[in-house]
Amino acid sequence: MQKLRTAIVGASGYSGEELVALLARHPQVEIVAVTSRQSAGQTVAEVFPRMAGSVIAGIKFVEPSLDALKQSGATTVFLALPHGLAAEFAAPLRKAGIQVVDLSADFRLKSADVFAEFYGEKHPAPGLLAESVYALPEICGSDALKGAGLLACPGCYPTSILVPLVPLLRAKLIEPDPIVINSLSGVSGAGRKADVALLFAECNESLRAYGAPKHRHLSEIEQELSSAAGEKVTVSFTPHLVPVTRGMVSTIVVKPTKGTDAKAVEAAWHGAYKDRTFIRVVPHLPDSKHVTNSNFIDMAVREDARTGRLLLFSAIDNLGKGAAAQAVQAFNISQGWDETTGLV
Amino acid sequence: MQKLRTAIVGASGYSGEELVALLARHPQVEIVAVTSRQSAGQTVAEVFPRMAGSVIAGIKFVEPSLDALKQSGATTVFLALPHGLAAEFAAPLRKAGIQVVDLSADFRLKSADVFAEFYGEKHPAPGLLAESVYALPEICGSDALKGAGLLACPGCYPTSILVPLVPLLRAKLIEPDPIVINSLSGVSGAGRKADVALLFAECNESLRAYGAPKHRHLSEIEQELSSAAGEKVTVSFTPHLVPVTRGMVSTIVVKPTKGTDAKAVEAAWHGAYKDRTFIRVVPHLPDSKHVTNSNFIDMAVREDARTGRLLLFSAIDNLGKGAAAQAVQAFNISQGWDETTGLV
Amino acid sequence: MQKLRTAIVGASGYSGEELVALLARHPQVEIVAVTSRQSAGQTVAEVFPRMAGSVIAGIKFVEPSLDALKQSGATTVFLALPHGLAAEFAAPLRKAGIQVVDLSADFRLKSADVFAEFYGEKHPAPGLLAESVYALPEICGSDALKGAGLLACPGCYPTSILVPLVPLLRAKLIEPDPIVINSLSGVSGAGRKADVALLFAECNESLRAYGAPKHRHLSEIEQELSSAAGEKVTVSFTPHLVPVTRGMVSTIVVKPTKGTDAKAVEAAWHGAYKDRTFIRVVPHLPDSKHVTNSNFIDMAVREDARTGRLLLFSAIDNLGKGAAAQAVQAFNISQGWDETTGLV
Amino acid sequence: MQKLRTAIVGASGYSGEELVALLARHPQVEIVAVTSRQSAGQTVAEVFPRMAGSVIAGIKFVEPSLDALKQSGATTVFLALPHGLAAEFAAPLRKAGIQVVDLSADFRLKSADVFAEFYGEKHPAPGLLAESVYALPEICGSDALKGAGLLACPGCYPTSILVPLVPLLRAKLIEPDPIVINSLSGVSGAGRKADVALLFAECNESLRAYGAPKHRHLSEIEQELSSAAGEKVTVSFTPHLVPVTRGMVSTIVVKPTKGTDAKAVEAAWHGAYKDRTFIRVVPHLPDSKHVTNSNFIDMAVREDARTGRLLLFSAIDNLGKGAAAQAVQAFNISQGWDETTGLV
Repeated sequence: MQKLRTAIVGASGYSGEELVALLARHPQVEIVAVTSRQSAGQTVAEVFPRMAGSVIAGIKFVEPSLDALKQSGATTVFLALPHGLAAEFAAPLRKAGIQVVDLSADFRLKSADVFAEFYGEKHPAPGLLAESVYALPEICGSDALKGAGLLACPGCYPTSILVPLVPLLRAKLIEPDPIVINSLSGVSGAGRKADVALLFAECNESLRAYGAPKHRHLSEIEQELSSAAGEKVTVSFTPHLVPVTRGMVSTIVVKPTKGTDAKAVEAAWHGAYKDRTFIRVVPHLPDSKHVTNSNFIDMAVREDARTGRLLLFSAIDNLGKGAAAQAVQAFNISQGWDETTGLV
Repeated sequence: MQKLRTAIVGASGYSGEELVALLARHPQVEIVAVTSRQSAGQTVAEVFPRMAGSVIAGIKFVEPSLDALKQSGATTVFLALPHGLAAEFAAPLRKAGIQVVDLSADFRLKSADVFAEFYGEKHPAPGLLAESVYALPEICGSDALKGAGLLACPGCYPTSILVPLVPLLRAKLIEPDPIVINSLSGVSGAGRKADVALLFAECNESLRAYGAPKHRHLSEIEQELSSAAGEKVTVSFTPHLVPVTRGMVSTIVVKPTKGTDAKAVEAAWHGAYKDRTFIRVVPHLPDSKHVTNSNFIDMAVREDARTGRLLLFSAIDNLGKGAAAQAVQAFNISQGWDETTGLV
Repeated sequence: MQKLRTAIVGASGYSGEELVALLARHPQVEIVAVTSRQSAGQTVAEVFPRMAGSVIAGIKFVEPSLDALKQSGATTVFLALPHGLAAEFAAPLRKAGIQVVDLSADFRLKSADVFAEFYGEKHPAPGLLAESVYALPEICGSDALKGAGLLACPGCYPTSILVPLVPLLRAKLIEPDPIVINSLSGVSGAGRKADVALLFAECNESLRAYGAPKHRHLSEIEQELSSAAGEKVTVSFTPHLVPVTRGMVSTIVVKPTKGTDAKAVEAAWHGAYKDRTFIRVVPHLPDSKHVTNSNFIDMAVREDARTGRLLLFSAIDNLGKGAAAQAVQAFNISQGWDETTGLV
Repeated sequence: MQKLRTAIVGASGYSGEELVALLARHPQVEIVAVTSRQSAGQTVAEVFPRMAGSVIAGIKFVEPSLDALKQSGATTVFLALPHGLAAEFAAPLRKAGIQVVDLSADFRLKSADVFAEFYGEKHPAPGLLAESVYALPEICGSDALKGAGLLACPGCYPTSILVPLVPLLRAKLIEPDPIVINSLSGVSGAGRKADVALLFAECNESLRAYGAPKHRHLSEIEQELSSAAGEKVTVSFTPHLVPVTRGMVSTIVVKPTKGTDAKAVEAAWHGAYKDRTFIRVVPHLPDSKHVTNSNFIDMAVREDARTGRLLLFSAIDNLGKGAAAQAVQAFNISQGWDETTGLV
């Protein structure tokens, strides 16, 4: 069988590394190029010693360039780049008919204005927004992904929040206001960058909220929640940085509509996600440890009889379901393959 | 100067150990007895090697018994025992005219019924509830503590939550509903007990909510919030276990009453706590790392213009301001000393 | 294809859990029974939530008993039990013609006397020692494993030490004395047991040597080194407990025989292990992070021109190459399969 | 009482921060200036939020310059700078008659040639080497420090190694060869610098040797060991980076001279250090956790009857006894104060 040729741009960050590892084991895929500005000229095994011995150990990183990507013969290019930069590659790649799976924020928002509001700069390629699919498979559905040319993979916080909330808003099981979300993220979520605030000696034995009250991910969270509710939804969202390498949990407090109890929530989840492999409704409160190195999302619900509210809980691996593994899942569906290919 | 004679019962747990360390350096205090069932017969230095070389290194742990405490000549006894057990010591000690500083939950609640509801057992010494002071100095005030015979020291979660909230409820700056609280706690908060769920290999790289929706600490949180608001207050509270040894942060979402902005909150905090050493209103979002091994509580506020809500943040050391250091602070005040004695 | 029926006894410890996870994904194997005293009656998904969704999620743990194992139809039984207890199962299983892959220390030593010296008790089944193979594939060789009925899988420390040292002793490239070994181990190596010394709050921010000077693993280390050298070898060995969940590195200082340099060491390793998949001779100093969740061992050598000694370094995952993954590797070879089956 | 005026140069690194915290509590000292290139203009509380509320919270960092230091009226200046840079300040400060307590490597070596060999550059101020004292109080003795104008404070590795070894070499209780040293260091030892290799997500769950076989600290280790032995001593030394913020343990394997047993070692330690507060000979194997945030060094010895060697163990806080606290101890002695002033 002819394998599909893929390239990964920005492969030396944490999401990029994870993508390389996943695609290297993917039975339908061949990695034909990996790019990285700082690692160009080095082999995959030199940059990622844990991949020594794998099929791609000897591939050399190249400088990211459109020419290099075209020459590689890649028909799908994964972009693991900072926002803004991703669009610079996406536009010409799409023009050349190459599928783009983008892990940045550049194509997640339908509105260039909202992008400008949250990212503080003009959208770099607004003409592509109409084409892009917000590639959270459990939310957008498989049909939207099949054959898609530009997949805008969601961020980690949105994934952990939208999967539990969207079916409940769609089914009017909860009120769209108030929704109060608190999330905890592992440090790899901040990226592999030389930043004193991310040093071991800074993060270890440290717990801190950050980015409140207007974290950038709020823009895509509210876009998708509003779409699910059929009305404008505005939420409280506070992310926290905690000393784990990988992992994310979200705790969401919502007000049920009349009669919604925990059973109804679980039924809605089971119904909405009955064909989905990576959704696990669990009896215990989710623990990020149970989903590390996987594409699963664990979810649970509790009734708070005292306040009349519902508590929703989720756990993902911020680099797995929150980034690279989910990108592969969406890509699988876009190609017409089983969503689990290469992921279990 | 004659030093005050103190004993610590249950000194081999984490709070007990911290108490021993703090009181050993306290200029007004002499430790005359330390008790521990499992460590009886061993010296302090044997049980806590980090205290080798300190003045109390050679003191031997004894079996906990009323006789031993009386014979020690202690005029103040600190109880670092599980709930239920603490009351067994507190009652006869009070009868003997000995001051009790209790770190357990036994005397925090005014109502024996609420105790029974949250702790699942009859209150062991309801007759003492009237006498006890809920010893959160910044909330109860110094006058309530002066000369008090039974100090019921608050739990770590309540401390991190009540200090930011109570002045705002007293001043009607926020609505008493909804109040949504999320807290993160270090693992030492669960105590030094042989429990598989607390092993390093279980807690490391793990993030998990627990105890929701009805954690025991809710009882004292709501008692004090209701008292501050002058009406029954019911809150959403979700604690999380995260892999730090020491540290606690709380993030609280509230609805301001008309006109309350961040400035008003800060002014209320500064006003209410103007004579308090251990309150720090900080410009950044609080980080537990900044308060480790101290009795400080760091607090901050943010306006969420999008939702119209306020976000309150606090950070403490769960064994410091959340347990042992705060107990010493309250004890200092009860003795008429400066609240910082032995703590800075 | 008919899959080989396997059972795992003592499956609720860390090595047992890892075995279950590996064998569940193994293409040639079916898990027909998992036993655990404390988890009997619960499903695999209940005990190990991360395995929810896997093929064995619904299998129930049963009480460990010979009858249950026989009735399961297992033709291979993995024992992840404490030493002493393992032999109680191994003896009757072997009698019944069932292959035993034992992860305990019971059958690693050729001499019942050495067992008694290091483990402080009479060997529980000396009659089986002659049959057992010390199942470190790179050392014992594949031929010794093919068709073997009783595989005594090595401990984590011995694995990390023997793989770099044995080829050098066999080739007389280093002196058999002095050999000074220091190893660092992650906390999972101590097992999933309710022990205060293994609590997160004890192990985090703690570095400590332990078990010196006569750790039990020395017995198998020296047995195999002596066999390789053709003379009695006695080594200095100091293990350390450090705060990682998984991982082990060993640093070994040796004296080269005349003319041995780093190149000669690498050549010896490449020669001895030329057909071995899981050996990686790396240019950098090995990092345990690179081998986590794998069966790889990374090794490097440095010349210390100043002392005239050689420094050898290795890194493994103590639960991977140091326990469960290596057991599967040896089992694969015993069955005539590729050693990597189910492991990459 | 008039307090001694001190300044700290390079105060925004980990050692500098620790110095600021220690000197702020020091009863005989006033901090009159703190310098930092990157933090100039900010207050101590802004740069180190944990110091908010302390006496020096409001002091502003200034650009490091000789003029600023002179104008501050400081009579002692602590240098917490990289090697090379420290000498640039030390030379003119000494010329101006100001005492210099240097935490860098610039003045630790007696030989400018050895400096050049290990640091790869010409010594920046060889004229000062004769004046400097290697300020490890337990080794150089208090007399050498009294009135000293240039204190060269030892590194963390040398401290943890020299304190156990020097008395044994001086008393000829051990052979000067072979000496094999393995040390584990917390990540703060690498400094507060924006380096990807020091990120939380890189160091967490990672164990790795580094800097072998010729770490820079070897130069001072061997200088002092040779001096103690009265002959050239060359040692094997392998440092390891492990995921704790603070802490260092060293494990040292030595060959006893005829008749030296563990008792003799302990007696030698007790004899050599009988007037020393910060030495603790402990019965258990030292744990870095017991010395965190202190100036103590814990030491133990074990006989390895099997090899005939002795195992020596030590534990320190790399920022305490390994850096800032030890600098304060040496400074105390230089001023004629009790060595413990401000340290307990």
